[in-house]
Amino acid sequence: MNIPQINHLQEAHKRIKPFVHRTPVLTSHYLNSLLGCEVFFKCENFQKVGAFKFRGATNALLSLPPEQLRNGVATHSSGNHAQALALAAKLLGTKATIIMPNNSPNVKKNAVAGYGADIILCEPTLESREQTLRQFVSKSGAIFVHPYDNFNIICGQGTAAIELIEEVGSLDTVVAPVGGGGLLSGTSIATKSLLPNSKVFGAEPLGADDAARSLRSGVRVESIIANTVADGLRTTLSELTFSIIKQNVQDIITVDDQAIISAMKLIWERMKIIVEPSSATALAAVAAEKEKFAGCRVGIILSGGNVDLDNLPW
Amino acid sequence: MNIPQINHLQEAHKRIKPFVHRTPVLTSHYLNSLLGCEVFFKCENFQKVGAFKFRGATNALLSLPPEQLRNGVATHSSGNHAQALALAAKLLGTKATIIMPNNSPNVKKNAVAGYGADIILCEPTLESREQTLRQFVSKSGAIFVHPYDNFNIICGQGTAAIELIEEVGSLDTVVAPVGGGGLLSGTSIATKSLLPNSKVFGAEPLGADDAARSLRSGVRVESIIANTVADGLRTTLSELTFSIIKQNVQDIITVDDQAIISAMKLIWERMKIIVEPSSATALAAVAAEKEKFAGCRVGIILSGGNVDLDNLPW
Repeated sequence: MNIPQINHLQEAHKRIKPFVHRTPVLTSHYLNSLLGCEVFFKCENFQKVGAFKFRGATNALLSLPPEQLRNGVATHSSGNHAQALALAAKLLGTKATIIMPNNSPNVKKNAVAGYGADIILCEPTLESREQTLRQFVSKSGAIFVHPYDNFNIICGQGTAAIELIEEVGSLDTVVAPVGGGGLLSGTSIATKSLLPNSKVFGAEPLGADDAARSLRSGVRVESIIANTVADGLRTTLSELTFSIIKQNVQDIITVDDQAIISAMKLIWERMKIIVEPSSATALAAVAAEKEKFAGCRVGIILSGGNVDLDNLPW
Repeated sequence: MNIPQINHLQEAHKRIKPFVHRTPVLTSHYLNSLLGCEVFFKCENFQKVGAFKFRGATNALLSLPPEQLRNGVATHSSGNHAQALALAAKLLGTKATIIMPNNSPNVKKNAVAGYGADIILCEPTLESREQTLRQFVSKSGAIFVHPYDNFNIICGQGTAAIELIEEVGSLDTVVAPVGGGGLLSGTSIATKSLLPNSKVFGAEPLGADDAARSLRSGVRVESIIANTVADGLRTTLSELTFSIIKQNVQDIITVDDQAIISAMKLIWERMKIIVEPSSATALAAVAAEKEKFAGCRVGIILSGGNVDLDNLPW
C-alpha cells in the first residue's frame, strides 16, 4: 500500500495554494475556560464550498496528467465531496459527473449543479451507486475520484493541519472528525511528522462508530448501518485510511448525537460561526473527555459549515 | 452641542484597544458577484459580547474619572448595550446595574447576569424605564451611560470604522445600520474624516424608519411605534446623533423585514457566520439599491451576532 508521507502533503500544499482559501484559526476565551484547555479551531467551514473537501479534490485533479482530465472526472457522493469535485473540475477546466441517490435533497443537487457538474441519479443503495458509477466511467473514460480512499485526496486533506501548525506552532493534541478517514489520515500524517511529541485523536459519532471499533479490535469494520446527525461521518474506513490511522492515531473518541448537537450550538452561540454537525463532533469529543486534554494546547479541525438552515437539529 | 471629532475617536481607539477584539474584515466572492460591487464586512459579531456596543461602553467607562466609577454605572436596555456595559464594568472593576422590562426574555436577563451585573425589572414602558432609572441613580449615585446619546459612546462605536479603513484602505462607501444612531454617527465621523471623498449611508428597517423620515424632513422624529425583526434598531435618533448624521450621511436606505431576513440568511449560508437581523439590514440596503453601489468598494459594519437560535426568523 502506498502511504502518503509529509513531503507528499507539503507538495500538495504548494500545488493547491493558489486555489484554496487559507482559512483562519479562531479561539474563544469562553470555550477555553469551559474546557480547561486552549483550543485552536482551524475553520474549514470558511473553505471554498464550505468544507475541507475542496483541498483534497483540488489536489487530486492537479495531480492527474492533463490528458487524463480530458474525459472529465466522476464520483458518487451526495455530500461535500460532490460539491468540492464539481468546483475543482470547473476551476481546472474539466467536467465533473456526480452520481447521487435519487432521494438526495434538492438543496444538494442544486449546489452541485450550481458548480456546473452533471448529475446522474441512482437508487439510494451502495450497490446501485457503485454500479452506476462503473457504467458511467467505462462509457465516458472519466476518472473516478474516490472521496477518501485515494492517495492524493488524503494529501490534500492534510494541508489544513499543516496550515494550523504553521500558524499556532506547537500543539499537544490535534482532534479531527472521522468518517471515511481521509481528513483524519491527512491530519495525523501532518501532525505526527511536524510535531512528533503530539497526539492525534479522532472524533466519531456513536451511531457510526466503525473507526473506533476497527481501531479497538485491529480488524477493519467494513460496513455499518449508520444512524447519526453528523451526515458527513456515515462512511467507513478504507484499507488505506485504516492503516494510516492505526499507525498514527492515539484513540477514537465516540460521542452521541445529543453531545454533537450541544457542541454545535455552543460553537454557533459563542463563536458566531456556522459549523455542521460533523465539525462539532471534534469539540464534543474534547468536552466528553476533558481530563485527557486538561491544560493542553489542542488543535481542532472544524471540517465544514454546510447546514440546511430550514432544518436545524435543535 | 459637543460633537465628536476624528481626534476624539482616535483617542478612544487607543484607550479601548487593550480591551476590545480587533475584529476581522471578511469578503465573499459570491456576494460581490451577486451585488456587482466589492464588499468588505467588518465583523463586529465577533466582538466581545457579540456586538460593537462593547466598544462604546468600554470607552465611556474608561473616559470617566475613577472617582465617578466608585458608585457604579447604570443603563436601561434589554439589548446588546446592557451586556456591553455589564462586561465593561466587570473588566474595569466597577458595578453595572441594568434596568430591564419585566417581559425581557430569560436569555437576555441571564446574559446580563452572567457578566455580573445587577438587574432591576420595570414595567415594559418607556416611562417606567426612565423613572426606575432616575430613582436608582439618585439613590445610588451610579453614573447613567446612555446607549447612544453620549459623546464617548459615539467615539467608541466609531472605532470599528477606523479599523476597517486601516485594514482595507480606500472605500467609496460605508454602510452601517441605524437605530438610535450611535454606530452610524461614529462611523460617519471616522469615514468622512479619513476618506473625505467617500459617502456614508445608513440602513434602516421600514418598520422603524424615524431616521429616514427625520433626514428627509430636516425635523427629528422623536418617537415611533417600531415594528421590525431588527430588534437592535427600534430606537429613535437623539438630538446629538441626528445632528451628526444630518451633516455626514448621504442618505438613509430603508428595507422591509423580508429583505432583512433574506440578507441575514444569505450571510449565514454563504459566509458561514452568524449575524443578527440588525446587522443584515446593511447588506439588505446595498442589495435593494444595487445601482448606487455598482463597481464600488463598499464597507459594511456587521453590527452584531446575538440571535436566539431556537427562534429564527425564517
